[in-house]
Amino acid sequence: MENGLRNPSETTGKVITCKAAITWGPGEPFVMEEVRVDPPQKMEVRIKILFTSICHTDLSAWQGENEAQRAYPRILGHEASGIVESVGEGVMDIKKGDHVVPIFNGECGDCLYCKCEKTNMCERAGVDPFMTVMVNDGKSRFSCKEGKPIFHFLNTSTFSEYTVVESACVVKIDPDASLKTMTLLSCGVSTGVGAAWNIANVRAGSTVAIFGLGAVGLAVAEGARARGATKIIGVDINPNKFIKGRAMGITDTINPRDFEKPVHECIREMTGGGVDYSFECAGISEVLREAFLSTHEGWGLTVILGIHTSPKLLPLHPMELFTGRVIIASVFGGFKGKTQLPNFAKECMQGVVNLEEFITHELPFEKINEAFQLLIDGKSVRCMLHL
Amino acid sequence: MENGLRNPSETTGKVITCKAAITWGPGEPFVMEEVRVDPPQKMEVRIKILFTSICHTDLSAWQGENEAQRAYPRILGHEASGIVESVGEGVMDIKKGDHVVPIFNGECGDCLYCKCEKTNMCERAGVDPFMTVMVNDGKSRFSCKEGKPIFHFLNTSTFSEYTVVESACVVKIDPDASLKTMTLLSCGVSTGVGAAWNIANVRAGSTVAIFGLGAVGLAVAEGARARGATKIIGVDINPNKFIKGRAMGITDTINPRDFEKPVHECIREMTGGGVDYSFECAGISEVLREAFLSTHEGWGLTVILGIHTSPKLLPLHPMELFTGRVIIASVFGGFKGKTQLPNFAKECMQGVVNLEEFITHELPFEKINEAFQLLIDGKSVRCMLHL
Repeated sequence: MENGLRNPSETTGKVITCKAAITWGPGEPFVMEEVRVDPPQKMEVRIKILFTSICHTDLSAWQGENEAQRAYPRILGHEASGIVESVGEGVMDIKKGDHVVPIFNGECGDCLYCKCEKTNMCERAGVDPFMTVMVNDGKSRFSCKEGKPIFHFLNTSTFSEYTVVESACVVKIDPDASLKTMTLLSCGVSTGVGAAWNIANVRAGSTVAIFGLGAVGLAVAEGARARGATKIIGVDINPNKFIKGRAMGITDTINPRDFEKPVHECIREMTGGGVDYSFECAGISEVLREAFLSTHEGWGLTVILGIHTSPKLLPLHPMELFTGRVIIASVFGGFKGKTQLPNFAKECMQGVVNLEEFITHELPFEKINEAFQLLIDGKSVRCMLHL
Repeated sequence: MENGLRNPSETTGKVITCKAAITWGPGEPFVMEEVRVDPPQKMEVRIKILFTSICHTDLSAWQGENEAQRAYPRILGHEASGIVESVGEGVMDIKKGDHVVPIFNGECGDCLYCKCEKTNMCERAGVDPFMTVMVNDGKSRFSCKEGKPIFHFLNTSTFSEYTVVESACVVKIDPDASLKTMTLLSCGVSTGVGAAWNIANVRAGSTVAIFGLGAVGLAVAEGARARGATKIIGVDINPNKFIKGRAMGITDTINPRDFEKPVHECIREMTGGGVDYSFECAGISEVLREAFLSTHEGWGLTVILGIHTSPKLLPLHPMELFTGRVIIASVFGGFKGKTQLPNFAKECMQGVVNLEEFITHELPFEKINEAFQLLIDGKSVRCMLHL
């Protein structure tokens, strides 16, 4: 079945051999190799990746920080954009030639969660760090020249010239949009802006504190600025982050190393009792507690965006919740990807969110190891790899 | 100033000598003694208490479970009803003869919190376990015959024939209402029903689990039943609680001691993945974790109502919040007392909530020690003391 495509491409239905950056072990340099990419099966889509960038989750997976992440060989990468090469049986909403971004947290549209307005989880295609194969048949669509299968990553595996993903994980984007900037909607920017818009529902005139000014933290700032927050405090131990931060919504900055007292005390003093919203984008237990304590009693809301790999409990006593402060977590900014991202993309095209500012570096795909080093050194917000 | 009262009672402006049940030390039997109750000062109200009941917070304060609670001599009690004897300067909304219930979590109407719709905290008269005196002058209105001051408790101190409270902590009730049943609105019933209505916003057709079937847990059940929840699971290790529970909205019961597997697994099996809402009314860390895990991923909401005196952290890992489950705490059911309780009282008069069912015992005030024993033995839901 060709889904009404009149001129199937030469590759449709066939294995594609292309270049991919393979991870062979924790922290080992990426190896650019030829891989075989199988055709998409039922409800799957094969995408020719044009741009991919690198997020901290790629970094921690590459380093194999936890058990779930240690599956080799593997093709990492989950923030990308590209053009549909072909689609599998049953895919009706996506066709060859569509401009798309893959999303690690899919939306099948049919499950209990997809039908519930309160969540953006998905039973079939939701984010699952333990998933290393396709849901259809439990197998990989990637293999080495010798036939050895290569594991998938976060529903996406975008460090490859071609990838196969669930159609639930493919969002169609206006072909007039710049695919390079739309790449950012695949993870970081949607996660941050969505946390401010969908999860916290930041109001005009409100106060915000953001802990950790990586791409996600900066995206929270952009989201809060777009909503009209009047004070947006950026907290980071790397003062270089403040330069970019001030260009992207941050109005005040705090380097915890400049103060003897805890950050939450500084923030309470700056805001007459605490901010309305705080966002924890560091994945550090002690930072999470500071973020919680820096909000105003009675209505303060803390949103957890950081990935906490340590086995520590929430650094809060149950009674501390009786202060009226609330703490919640957010995955992919609460966006239901297929339903809501196309509209968010339009808003970005209209300039509501400044995407260009996130791209600090651009490199050819082959220099992926260099791009990882930029992130490790805290030099890049997003390094865009061109395929 | 007499606030326009044409016939000030003989006691207005004078010290009243009356009986009160004094706590002299942790766990020591209450001693019925004569005390002197000063006239109400500016923005204060003196109430002739007609009914008072006993809540677990009185019990833990009596036992002196934590530092904040150890202040002696003290007049405990915070769930009550009565008639206004006189009011102090500036009190405009309450007058002599009004039928009222005192509330431990006041509403001054003027502070930042009272003006914010997101919270029922109050800067001047909110619940404060450390507060042992009146806010006006930092002094007590109670004294022993020998002149020694007696400490106040939770803004209310209702184990006394007369008490003085902030006007922010006095709610006027329809004089046609039964003061005996309205006593329950002073704490337990408002806390439980309000948690279901104002905090969780339980929807018709939803599923609920309640951990701990004391008065507050039963009030949650009543609130959930009134909202049309179809499955209301009661969890308690005392199977006697199920008899009363079934009369008050509980549709299914679980005694954790009857199962080898954790309660949350039973509940997930009974509900196809977990309940929509769970309520923790036990104040036990392990129970809190079970309550959290028994809700459905994606949208499950856990409301903490129990008082956790142990110094344990929240028994959750930050990543567990990424399941979409939310955990929040509730004080006084989220009710802004002065604003919202009169309407809630009307709904109770109309039978929306079955108040009578909560009153399992009635005793004269003098038998307060016997009433405490009934609560300790798990025999009473509410024992109403008649003054």
